[in-house]
Amino acid sequence: MTIFTKIIKGEIPSYKIAENQHAYAFLDIRPLKEGHVLVVPKKEVDYIFDLDDETWTALHLFAKQIGVAIKKVIPCQRVGIAVIGLEVPHAHIHLIPIDSEKDLSFANKRLSLSEEEFKNIAQKIREAL
Amino acid sequence: MTIFTKIIKGEIPSYKIAENQHAYAFLDIRPLKEGHVLVVPKKEVDYIFDLDDETWTALHLFAKQIGVAIKKVIPCQRVGIAVIGLEVPHAHIHLIPIDSEKDLSFANKRLSLSEEEFKNIAQKIREAL
Repeated sequence: MTIFTKIIKGEIPSYKIAENQHAYAFLDIRPLKEGHVLVVPKKEVDYIFDLDDETWTALHLFAKQIGVAIKKVIPCQRVGIAVIGLEVPHAHIHLIPIDSEKDLSFANKRLSLSEEEFKNIAQKIREAL
Repeated sequence: MTIFTKIIKGEIPSYKIAENQHAYAFLDIRPLKEGHVLVVPKKEVDYIFDLDDETWTALHLFAKQIGVAIKKVIPCQRVGIAVIGLEVPHAHIHLIPIDSEKDLSFANKRLSLSEEEFKNIAQKIREAL
């Protein structure tokens, strides 16, 4: 079972944003920016391009809703999207508030936020949904 | 009219991969890696999250087909996905063959390829569709 499946099942806690039948969204705990969210299919598929079309579409429509909500409450120029998928063998979409091209680099330093800060960010995004 | 609309209309040449009713795919001429493709909605929308759900879904399903084809013919661990959208005011998805997390950084040096090389890459991807 992947770490993301454990998060989806609630066996590992997460700062949850939302879930539906196909997908689950929560804060990245090593965020590149405040409001950095991971959107994960409930199906335990490693490589995102291996998802069937229905799950792919549901995942991306869900990510769209989350991305729109992030933009409403996190100050940023845009919400950027990234899929790399070489770290955890469970497909996931990064939604990252950005102000410049370089904000989307995974070589950037991760932020250290307190539990209180994570909770506040998650609540703000949930309320914007 | 954006540069991408000019490309879609054929007013500016491109190394075309494919198109359908909603979207157009072509090689990025400043590629991070061989096989770096841009997937663009035909609708001239600046911010990708402003696309209506139908166009968003069509765009992403089209990108999926292209991504699968890239992986078949370009040696790489994965095809990565990135949307930044701060350069050209017309939404676009980057599909980038990657072997490590750092391959998806836009701070990386762009490749200089010859017209012959671009043509060969585009043809290989088209044939894999």
